[in-house]
Amino acid sequence: MDAKWLVGVDLGGTTIKMAFISLNGDIIYSWEIDTDKRESGRYIPTRIASTIDQKLNELNQTKNRLIGIGIGAPGPVNVDGSIEVAVNLGWRKFPLQAILERETSLPVAVENDANIAAIGEMWKGAGKGAKNLICVTLGTGVGGGIIVNGEIVHGVNGAGGEIGHITSVPRNGSPCNCGKSGCLETVASATGISRLALEKLASTNDISKIRDYYEKHQTISAKLVFDAANEGDELAKRVIQQVVYHLGLALANLANGLNPEKIVIGGGVSKAGDTLLGPLKEEFVLYTFPRVAQGAEIVIATLGNNAGVIGGAWLAKERLINKSEVK
Amino acid sequence: MDAKWLVGVDLGGTTIKMAFISLNGDIIYSWEIDTDKRESGRYIPTRIASTIDQKLNELNQTKNRLIGIGIGAPGPVNVDGSIEVAVNLGWRKFPLQAILERETSLPVAVENDANIAAIGEMWKGAGKGAKNLICVTLGTGVGGGIIVNGEIVHGVNGAGGEIGHITSVPRNGSPCNCGKSGCLETVASATGISRLALEKLASTNDISKIRDYYEKHQTISAKLVFDAANEGDELAKRVIQQVVYHLGLALANLANGLNPEKIVIGGGVSKAGDTLLGPLKEEFVLYTFPRVAQGAEIVIATLGNNAGVIGGAWLAKERLINKSEVK
Repeated sequence: MDAKWLVGVDLGGTTIKMAFISLNGDIIYSWEIDTDKRESGRYIPTRIASTIDQKLNELNQTKNRLIGIGIGAPGPVNVDGSIEVAVNLGWRKFPLQAILERETSLPVAVENDANIAAIGEMWKGAGKGAKNLICVTLGTGVGGGIIVNGEIVHGVNGAGGEIGHITSVPRNGSPCNCGKSGCLETVASATGISRLALEKLASTNDISKIRDYYEKHQTISAKLVFDAANEGDELAKRVIQQVVYHLGLALANLANGLNPEKIVIGGGVSKAGDTLLGPLKEEFVLYTFPRVAQGAEIVIATLGNNAGVIGGAWLAKERLINKSEVK
Repeated sequence: MDAKWLVGVDLGGTTIKMAFISLNGDIIYSWEIDTDKRESGRYIPTRIASTIDQKLNELNQTKNRLIGIGIGAPGPVNVDGSIEVAVNLGWRKFPLQAILERETSLPVAVENDANIAAIGEMWKGAGKGAKNLICVTLGTGVGGGIIVNGEIVHGVNGAGGEIGHITSVPRNGSPCNCGKSGCLETVASATGISRLALEKLASTNDISKIRDYYEKHQTISAKLVFDAANEGDELAKRVIQQVVYHLGLALANLANGLNPEKIVIGGGVSKAGDTLLGPLKEEFVLYTFPRVAQGAEIVIATLGNNAGVIGGAWLAKERLINKSEVK
């Protein structure tokens, strides 16, 4: 009999990334489709089901080859695999697992998208082998996923791993979309970093490449700040110092609770590499219990956009193999 | 056949608390002995073994009745059940599990003492039923234990749950025994609270019961601060406000990562009850992601000094039952 395949699905607001993946976590075939958001996202499960059938067909395979589907969704996941709310998709109390199982006739496991990206990095990426792992994704926002004893930290109502909403500025912080203020997301996302740079420009008259750029283009990106810092720009360096202070303190305090082996930094901002990692490690160690600091390594994520589908496959492997045999 | 018993052991610097406990977590018989610290604590395992034999004898039982021993030790625990260092006992790289198994001819499971207290509260105390739990013990120091998905957060090198060493004062904090400064322990332990009260007295001339007491006795306890606050003393209230700010922020940020169902506050300081809990809850919610705040309840520990032995018994039940059947 041919070796079975897992299906990993990473459901985003713009595209749905999908892959057939081996039991070892290797991608056999991957593709993506647009996210159909018409009528509050009601067609999404049907589209996933039909594209799986179509790809099996193209590859001359039958559904018997598949163990099940592990899917990451952009919102808090309830224990029955329903999505409490996914603003991007228009979903509210949407029974994703039940509908997708019906549409595909396959067992389905559902998790939050940031959590399965963390699982992907644990299984095949920068966290390889680590059973205790903190993942943080610095993009437009700040996402997170935490692995403890080799398992996803789902939490009591699916909000586990919300690292972006750690409070970094307890007093007079910037308002966050979540309803609080001063969240890590407001100071360590790409958006947060450009905001901090603008604040810094407004508060001094120091000469800076960032200022020159801003006066010409009326906009500043996080990438610009890191590039300027690399070229020795003092104001840019001070902005980055502020970012790594908040990020280092937040990660240190999570690590003081969890004693992780790896801390994986992903997302667009992580492309800054050592310009971010160098000063981040210096701050991190200042706030970390010495034995915890000894045990923890901070690394850049390696799977990029594939983290989600690989994590989804892991989820299918862990949660569905027995279920599938019973069927 | 008679129902089997578990042995819970809570190994402290002054006394060793022990109990025979049913598989349901009920204490059948409990006792304690002094901790024999002579010659770097080398006699401790032998003393534990002999007192177990003696109690079995007194109760007309044989060793067949026992499944195994779960023991909490005051230091980081390695995966082989050895203790990296326990300053109070004089231990360094002490193979506790191996020696105690040899001395008792029973299987042994070892964990950090704060972790098994957390497990005890999860199983039979204030956390009853919660699979996701943060426990913090406010005593002379600040201890902690974290449960995720029903399992102890041990971490990669046994330093999981070190909540007392979360950095609460990132800049110019008080030095902590751990080598860092500004730890939660320096502002939320009984010792920390009296230190904050002394600082507050020195920084103002405000009339206060605390000042009157201090001028007479040259000392201030945490209890005095809570009692004075209960009687409406403004300076005492400001000290407590400072304590709950730091404790609330630290617990909120851990909760933002872990999405726990319960947060259990134990230790001597928790006897302040609502004088602590009321303002703590107000601060906590300010810094917590709304969905996480919805899911989390902050409660006072209920098991007191029995948390450790009950947690030890849980550990024995979870980790040793198969091992014992194999023997």
